[in-house]
Amino acid sequence: MPNKIQVGIIGATGMVGQRFIQLLEDHPWFEVAWLAASERSSGLPYSEAARWKLNTPIPDRVAAMRVHDAVPDGSPKVVFAALDAAAAKEIEPKFADAGRAVITNSSAFRMDANVPLVVPEVNGDHFKLIDQQPTRKRNGGYIATNPNCSAIGLVMALAPIHRRFGLEAVFVTTMQAVSGAGYPGVASLDILGNVIPFIAKEEEKLEAETRKLLGELHNGAVKDASFKISAQCNRVAVEDGHTESVSIKLKKLATHAEMLEAWSSFRSRPQELGLPTAPEHPVIYACGVDRPQPRLDVNRGGGMSATVGRLRPCSLLDWKFTVLSHNTIRGAAGAALLNAELLKRDGYLE
Amino acid sequence: MPNKIQVGIIGATGMVGQRFIQLLEDHPWFEVAWLAASERSSGLPYSEAARWKLNTPIPDRVAAMRVHDAVPDGSPKVVFAALDAAAAKEIEPKFADAGRAVITNSSAFRMDANVPLVVPEVNGDHFKLIDQQPTRKRNGGYIATNPNCSAIGLVMALAPIHRRFGLEAVFVTTMQAVSGAGYPGVASLDILGNVIPFIAKEEEKLEAETRKLLGELHNGAVKDASFKISAQCNRVAVEDGHTESVSIKLKKLATHAEMLEAWSSFRSRPQELGLPTAPEHPVIYACGVDRPQPRLDVNRGGGMSATVGRLRPCSLLDWKFTVLSHNTIRGAAGAALLNAELLKRDGYLE
Amino acid sequence: MPNKIQVGIIGATGMVGQRFIQLLEDHPWFEVAWLAASERSSGLPYSEAARWKLNTPIPDRVAAMRVHDAVPDGSPKVVFAALDAAAAKEIEPKFADAGRAVITNSSAFRMDANVPLVVPEVNGDHFKLIDQQPTRKRNGGYIATNPNCSAIGLVMALAPIHRRFGLEAVFVTTMQAVSGAGYPGVASLDILGNVIPFIAKEEEKLEAETRKLLGELHNGAVKDASFKISAQCNRVAVEDGHTESVSIKLKKLATHAEMLEAWSSFRSRPQELGLPTAPEHPVIYACGVDRPQPRLDVNRGGGMSATVGRLRPCSLLDWKFTVLSHNTIRGAAGAALLNAELLKRDGYLE
Amino acid sequence: MPNKIQVGIIGATGMVGQRFIQLLEDHPWFEVAWLAASERSSGLPYSEAARWKLNTPIPDRVAAMRVHDAVPDGSPKVVFAALDAAAAKEIEPKFADAGRAVITNSSAFRMDANVPLVVPEVNGDHFKLIDQQPTRKRNGGYIATNPNCSAIGLVMALAPIHRRFGLEAVFVTTMQAVSGAGYPGVASLDILGNVIPFIAKEEEKLEAETRKLLGELHNGAVKDASFKISAQCNRVAVEDGHTESVSIKLKKLATHAEMLEAWSSFRSRPQELGLPTAPEHPVIYACGVDRPQPRLDVNRGGGMSATVGRLRPCSLLDWKFTVLSHNTIRGAAGAALLNAELLKRDGYLE
Repeated sequence: MPNKIQVGIIGATGMVGQRFIQLLEDHPWFEVAWLAASERSSGLPYSEAARWKLNTPIPDRVAAMRVHDAVPDGSPKVVFAALDAAAAKEIEPKFADAGRAVITNSSAFRMDANVPLVVPEVNGDHFKLIDQQPTRKRNGGYIATNPNCSAIGLVMALAPIHRRFGLEAVFVTTMQAVSGAGYPGVASLDILGNVIPFIAKEEEKLEAETRKLLGELHNGAVKDASFKISAQCNRVAVEDGHTESVSIKLKKLATHAEMLEAWSSFRSRPQELGLPTAPEHPVIYACGVDRPQPRLDVNRGGGMSATVGRLRPCSLLDWKFTVLSHNTIRGAAGAALLNAELLKRDGYLE
Repeated sequence: MPNKIQVGIIGATGMVGQRFIQLLEDHPWFEVAWLAASERSSGLPYSEAARWKLNTPIPDRVAAMRVHDAVPDGSPKVVFAALDAAAAKEIEPKFADAGRAVITNSSAFRMDANVPLVVPEVNGDHFKLIDQQPTRKRNGGYIATNPNCSAIGLVMALAPIHRRFGLEAVFVTTMQAVSGAGYPGVASLDILGNVIPFIAKEEEKLEAETRKLLGELHNGAVKDASFKISAQCNRVAVEDGHTESVSIKLKKLATHAEMLEAWSSFRSRPQELGLPTAPEHPVIYACGVDRPQPRLDVNRGGGMSATVGRLRPCSLLDWKFTVLSHNTIRGAAGAALLNAELLKRDGYLE
Repeated sequence: MPNKIQVGIIGATGMVGQRFIQLLEDHPWFEVAWLAASERSSGLPYSEAARWKLNTPIPDRVAAMRVHDAVPDGSPKVVFAALDAAAAKEIEPKFADAGRAVITNSSAFRMDANVPLVVPEVNGDHFKLIDQQPTRKRNGGYIATNPNCSAIGLVMALAPIHRRFGLEAVFVTTMQAVSGAGYPGVASLDILGNVIPFIAKEEEKLEAETRKLLGELHNGAVKDASFKISAQCNRVAVEDGHTESVSIKLKKLATHAEMLEAWSSFRSRPQELGLPTAPEHPVIYACGVDRPQPRLDVNRGGGMSATVGRLRPCSLLDWKFTVLSHNTIRGAAGAALLNAELLKRDGYLE
Repeated sequence: MPNKIQVGIIGATGMVGQRFIQLLEDHPWFEVAWLAASERSSGLPYSEAARWKLNTPIPDRVAAMRVHDAVPDGSPKVVFAALDAAAAKEIEPKFADAGRAVITNSSAFRMDANVPLVVPEVNGDHFKLIDQQPTRKRNGGYIATNPNCSAIGLVMALAPIHRRFGLEAVFVTTMQAVSGAGYPGVASLDILGNVIPFIAKEEEKLEAETRKLLGELHNGAVKDASFKISAQCNRVAVEDGHTESVSIKLKKLATHAEMLEAWSSFRSRPQELGLPTAPEHPVIYACGVDRPQPRLDVNRGGGMSATVGRLRPCSLLDWKFTVLSHNTIRGAAGAALLNAELLKRDGYLE
């Protein structure tokens, strides 16, 4: 594989780090060449450092790789990151300073004015913010982010609607899977037979990121979308897949058929460019009266599609529906990977 | 127990029927004297007819009782009912025609103009509708109902707010327990690690019943409350306890402290009269940032209180919060039992 | 696909029927040409007749196929069956009488003297019993069976040990997934947060089938293996994958290394012939101290391998270990499919 | 409550510590007067130090109590302990040295020759070992233990059988609840839809403790029971209640009726003395074909009874059956509390 781009993974032992490794196995453009994690793991072979929790085995080549400290020395030009916010705040700028392209799932810099927060099907043009990052000008390094796992499915469902009809208001109540909290994450005593009606900082992120993602880039700045949004976030006893009950108010009336058509015809640059991780259909409408469901629909489009269902009138706003997306694929590692693919096509990985 | 009122239970073998039996054991006013269920059970001792699913044993006296056909002959004057809507539609009028007081959890007649739909703490005065029922005039028989298990917790949380500040709009997304679907009800393959974003007719019931319950009785008719309400109903992997994410808009501004005070000071006739099944606090505000939770809070007030938590501003309406209530106690058998207690105090069981 | 063998599926709408359809999609040798189910489904397109519960979509071609009555008229020569025992007892002989090769997951005829009960890696030679079936002689029709979902993983783990060292006694306690009970099967109220220490007739099947499968064919009769076996069967809150705690006593002492070697070197005719559904490794030893686990290991070998772990001395017998296998793939539809593949190679599908 | 015995709790914030507080509320003999936990909690009011996970509220009086360091200064004469083994090893002897009666659920000293390991219904006479502890002679202090949560239900079921018929061999496979691992304990990603076939050191404890508990005290030493025992321990997705599949071989043949009679007639000193926490029936035989089940039977006898079911012949040994007990009540805090009650009656709390 001499021509593949060598990539590193910071936070390689966590749940999202594991997904990066799984999704990058046999990737046509990228090859995992370097792994980093916290000091505890430093120097260990990956197979010993990570408590692997996916249902496919660790790729042999990766299992034997040594885990490095999370410092830029010796790391490839392109690094994926999956860190908690506090660690990201400290570590990611060091990599950007050292000229690395940091394509990250971490939340630390998502709302920074010069940092693009991108879902490739929705606002790939926001990557232009990279050009304004001081490190980019100096040595090519930069930070590019993807949204929170609860925002991404919502934004994919809203984007084609917002483009055509304009959003005025959005209500969303989430029922989020435990894998979104990492490992060990949610204690079993807290979730067996239970609902936890709280996820720290999640509602704030979901509200703010949705408006930035659907915002517009003007004169080097993202102007947030102007609709109002109110979120309530709950944790439920589901392994993978965030389900969201959504109600929306539109600026311009849309019929049921027009809504469905907006979703079914939704294609964007990742689809046009045939990016390797892009799903054929970014949004799939599931027809059954009781769909989408995590157990049945979470892996649609290889875990990269958002599945929408139950579109019906809302007696308070205009329409209500349910949306589901895979929180550690489309909502985390797959999101960053698709970002990387679009960045490559747009010349940002040179 | 010579002075206790003899009561019957129609639909005694189902999940709600079992709760009736459990809650009526050692009741100070009522005594189970007669059981009825579908033909399949007819003639069997209750212990053989029912697949008992509660974690307290069947009371010995009840275990030995024979199950009757669901016809009024031989039944006591007061009967509790827990039937599916189709069966209730046919059976309950026969009991009312035969002079029985039918205090039912079934949905068939809840929205009928002459049938009271009552939560004793909220709209006990609606029982006056009974006087308009033709059977009541003829031979004393009548039908009195309690709401759907998803409506009751919501209404308890909304009632003191509506009284003081006036509701303009209500958004509610439910995460409902499987016991609400009876037995066998929800298949395990449908709910393990899953969310089902649909419960047949539930959203319609929840929207309509909430407005009737908070409506006002004028000149012998209930005028529904005028606020708008939009509901989304989901099934989750919880045994007992419906959790609901709620947002509301008020006519008159209320501060955080005023909202809490409205809930904490909420008392009503069941509390004043000291009805045996009435909880001391109809609404309890749970202070923890991640409360209420089914596992921890569902049995508050003996399963008869609604627990509210997470009151915070809503960026779209005014306030948002979470409410939890026990769906087969406060949301079903306990609701009917408290109705019966208030009916007795108001002279409707004479 | 002109040269593929046309196959039918009886019981096509159930959980195992769905797995047949999923596993037969893009099969190199077989093509689904005919579907049958109970009268209720007769005449409907498959997509309406079946409540599809797998997380891959119904293949388009199959979705549109009409479901037939379960009678042989018009059915292909080769039919897969997945029926409850009572229906199988009546229906399967009619297909064999009509000259069909009935390759079935049903339990009705497994213990019949002339009916082969086969796991291809273990006792493929038992297929010779087919030649003794009267229908086979008359018109080519016959019945061939695979074992119960709880027996198959156990037998795969025991077979290489039994061959080398001889089994004297087997203790097995199962923790079985809900999908083994079909749909709707186990009620959610019975399994959420629960263990059910009983599965009707399962212990009897597991004990009897294990001894037949490891028995030997002499003079046209299977002589059951002579070891004693005692089974205890439990249902747990797992979607797919039966886990079994096993203890064994051997005739000939085996070291830890010899046990592992027996498993790792286990290959059989399906592997030698390269049958399409045969896993490369019929038995995989999982090294982690806490493995195998359904969530992590159930899909090994495409769901066709048995995963063994935790081999350690038993203070009562000789060795104890845990074995896991996928109950609706290796334990049902995949088992029948692999049987069909071996039957084809052995000339029984001509 | 002037005459109640003041007690302390070491490890008061953990899951078992919380159960101690719950069970001691309104106890007729004991009163919680002192709480200790790790340094992190020191000085905080209990309501802030503990993450309370029980479904009854923290008693108000306890909520306001300050948590102390786990040192004997200022502690009452009688302390309950619930510590992990490493902490117990260090801390408990300090309390015994300081003259305290340490009644502990910790595992550190259970197998020590001079430390009684007691289930009051089974081997309360073993408390005499206390007299041999050097601290007891010096200043009255001592350590008394109860068994592991997986051993206690088994031992209660075995004790009456062993007394009458003599055990020769015991096979046991456990399916253990997550609360047995404390909080946060088992990660939800490890147990949702899963079985973990391993619990560290559990099989060793279960085998060794069972033989000590059923052993006999001769000349100041416990001689372990001589039967062989082999255990396999699994973790399942259950909140409370360990279920165990058991097979036994007896020295003297017992009929089905004799087995049932041995269990139903089992009474012991706690019952004779009417100890407050003693269940009326230490062992209850559940008649249903699919019982006992955690959801339905775990709270029998207030969580202090062991429930047995499914007695049937074993094709390898003599009899097999299922036993269930509550792992944090009978298997932990309730066990220690009942030990304390018997110790009081036997004069060891003077």
